[in-house]
Amino acid sequence: MRQRNKPWAKDKLMQHPQYVILEPIQHKGKWAEVFEEDQPLHIEIGTGKGRFITGMAKANPHINYIGIELAESVIVTALDKLIEEELPNLKLMNANAKNLAEYFDKGDVDRVYLNFSDPWPKTRHEKRRLTFKSFLDVYKSILVDKGEIHFKTDNQGLFEYSLTSFSEYGLLLTYVSLDLHNSDYEGNIMTEYEEKFSGRGSRIYRSEVRYQ
Amino acid sequence: MRQRNKPWAKDKLMQHPQYVILEPIQHKGKWAEVFEEDQPLHIEIGTGKGRFITGMAKANPHINYIGIELAESVIVTALDKLIEEELPNLKLMNANAKNLAEYFDKGDVDRVYLNFSDPWPKTRHEKRRLTFKSFLDVYKSILVDKGEIHFKTDNQGLFEYSLTSFSEYGLLLTYVSLDLHNSDYEGNIMTEYEEKFSGRGSRIYRSEVRYQ
Repeated sequence: MRQRNKPWAKDKLMQHPQYVILEPIQHKGKWAEVFEEDQPLHIEIGTGKGRFITGMAKANPHINYIGIELAESVIVTALDKLIEEELPNLKLMNANAKNLAEYFDKGDVDRVYLNFSDPWPKTRHEKRRLTFKSFLDVYKSILVDKGEIHFKTDNQGLFEYSLTSFSEYGLLLTYVSLDLHNSDYEGNIMTEYEEKFSGRGSRIYRSEVRYQ
Repeated sequence: MRQRNKPWAKDKLMQHPQYVILEPIQHKGKWAEVFEEDQPLHIEIGTGKGRFITGMAKANPHINYIGIELAESVIVTALDKLIEEELPNLKLMNANAKNLAEYFDKGDVDRVYLNFSDPWPKTRHEKRRLTFKSFLDVYKSILVDKGEIHFKTDNQGLFEYSLTSFSEYGLLLTYVSLDLHNSDYEGNIMTEYEEKFSGRGSRIYRSEVRYQ
């Protein structure tokens, strides 16, 4: 994602502790405390500008959501949405996916969403893809038993790679669409990228996998 | 496949026992005896007019092939190709995929090819799809340990279904292409259908899975 440099972004995040998780390690094993309701927790890794996660939080008030994004200058846009919307079941977190096991105990998370993750097309960058086995280890270590990953992308190579990576890891593929926007899947909430790319005619691929 | 009625087809098959396996049950557990060389055996289920399997047999002389097709009036065209080509490593068999375990012992077959199988799109016909679990049972019962299924189709729905069916069965997905003709896969041999459909712009999907 192209990012404008926003030197004020970190300060802005710090100034909104009611929306942004500033000390995630303090909530490990007791995430319900940061929300009004004790209900299932779904996280999006790479939440970008937050359109998907705010849409999901609005559509599903009985789920708690955390949108996680590494880039401060991007997640501040998600913060703006949240300031405007006041969604009690959504928080944001400025963190690196690699470190999630420091912040969540096994079973803290019920579902992981990955949307339009960086494809890292070069083979030598395979380890950076969010569907590489070391990341699947991380998700396993924070998800409930039989926890799910829901993944969509317009990148054919990343989708192909991910299907084989999931299989090799022993994940069960429970759903796959090779053309989401022309499928009978209902309730799809688009990301910023998804709207842009599918508007240009790109196919959107989507899968759901489950740990066994 | 639309078939012209060819009442003479069965007789023609019977008249060519050097190319057509007429009594498959007699070779169970000793399939090398029908070929010149004792080498790995790959079978295509639904071989149609035989373009794929004759191409494979020509390209890979150190593999034995059997092209299996239920429709007599279709497999006679494959027979014509074989009469013309004289490939010592290729035989044809007019048989139903359901019955393969009667003809092959566990371990007789090294690889199964499924190409452009009938999609049977209606849910009530799921059991007829060649990637339904009862067929995966049949293939398992005739394949070597860690035997492979190589599958291609232009039918998006059948491919999606098959990926989840393979996963549910516990097969390992080792290769997937969501656009075979625009991929770096080498050595693809097209079926009659493949040429026709891809010429009209359809994407070809391809996967390889392995029993574990």
